[in-house]
Amino acid sequence: MMRIDILSLFPEMIEGVFQSSILRKAYEKNFFSYHFINFRDFANNKHNKVDDYPYGGGAGMVLKPQPIFDAMETIEANGGKSPRIILMCPQGETFTQQKAEELAKEEHLVFICGHYEGYDERIRTNLVTDEISIGDYVLTGGELGAMVVIDSVVRLIPGVLGNDDSAVEDSFSTGLLEHPHYTRPADFRGLKVPDVLMSGNHANIEQWRRKESLRRTYLRRPDLLANLELTKEEEEWIEQWKNDRSSS
Amino acid sequence: MMRIDILSLFPEMIEGVFQSSILRKAYEKNFFSYHFINFRDFANNKHNKVDDYPYGGGAGMVLKPQPIFDAMETIEANGGKSPRIILMCPQGETFTQQKAEELAKEEHLVFICGHYEGYDERIRTNLVTDEISIGDYVLTGGELGAMVVIDSVVRLIPGVLGNDDSAVEDSFSTGLLEHPHYTRPADFRGLKVPDVLMSGNHANIEQWRRKESLRRTYLRRPDLLANLELTKEEEEWIEQWKNDRSSS
Repeated sequence: MMRIDILSLFPEMIEGVFQSSILRKAYEKNFFSYHFINFRDFANNKHNKVDDYPYGGGAGMVLKPQPIFDAMETIEANGGKSPRIILMCPQGETFTQQKAEELAKEEHLVFICGHYEGYDERIRTNLVTDEISIGDYVLTGGELGAMVVIDSVVRLIPGVLGNDDSAVEDSFSTGLLEHPHYTRPADFRGLKVPDVLMSGNHANIEQWRRKESLRRTYLRRPDLLANLELTKEEEEWIEQWKNDRSSS
Repeated sequence: MMRIDILSLFPEMIEGVFQSSILRKAYEKNFFSYHFINFRDFANNKHNKVDDYPYGGGAGMVLKPQPIFDAMETIEANGGKSPRIILMCPQGETFTQQKAEELAKEEHLVFICGHYEGYDERIRTNLVTDEISIGDYVLTGGELGAMVVIDSVVRLIPGVLGNDDSAVEDSFSTGLLEHPHYTRPADFRGLKVPDVLMSGNHANIEQWRRKESLRRTYLRRPDLLANLELTKEEEEWIEQWKNDRSSS
């Protein structure tokens, strides 16, 4: 069973995320355990201060090393292996589905969630094994980022998703964005489902889906196509879309 | 005051996020209001089903158009302008700090948070104004993504951040990753703060910070440098780091 520890000043912010939907089911079925540690409890000064002014001046407060180092020492081992100690921060490696797949194989993940201007550099250099950013934007703290990583990792633990939620056809697993989906009714306020999807011809349906998946990726995220091996027919489709755009 | 509506099947998953830290303070000071709408309440079938099998077959369930279209019709206008209606999905535009700055100027944001395999395509084509993905990874639902967007947007509303949390020097606003921060003690378990930060020489401190910021960006996120105008001295630093790496 995977063990997850979360060092946070605001555990109440994200406790609810564990109590809903697939994370709740996965927890109840013992696929993982989670533990919050409020590192303010470890501050060894009179007012339980966890932050202080930056050396060299400037705006913002910096998280002190002592409370976080001391909190880390209380974390119990899970099995023989050392935990992955993950700092959530904008300076980290950009999180991807590949990283989620890598972390899903671990037995023990520890997340450090900061607030304020930043972390004392000695936390980065002497404590953590991974620095992760969930994207190129700034959040008020690390908690939401940690929950994003945890959600994406837990759903990949074998057995967590049932057949109805299969992870096999996920976006980013195939390298393409997903094709459009349609469900009933066939005519919703005059908006109709494409005929091919109701034709019962599975070869045609598969081709339509592949083509729409490729078209959407070409139009929205051409950067993803660089890593793919395409068939000759697929390359011709793309050539055609390119011509359609330049002539319109 | 900004109005935020969130269409979700699992509001309890993310309610806590609004009740902590900076979002809580911003809400209490009337910088924004938020409203959850469970679109299951709008399902017009006996068992309040919101999903159904995909036309054309395949794994996973698809969110039906009817409950979401009907839920949208109950959302009250906020001022004269139409709301931005944002679909959280892996196929969307990749969220960035620039997009956060754009959305922070709006008066009314509506988020649609899905679960299961995906949305009926007619929701995308006939209802929403924006499709957003917070990154190239798969989550169990749209709620965490919506909260990431909301958190990054609300902190940019003028007045939300105090002086101690200034957004001016954020990562991604300057185009560079942030330089290292240090706070007391000057010697923590033998790990020392760089002398320059305690020198009191502000010109030297500024130069050190700019250089470390650039170094970190060069080493971790060279893609960000493509968009920057660098001074001659900065280009020489980079040339030096390049040589250091190739000779080591």
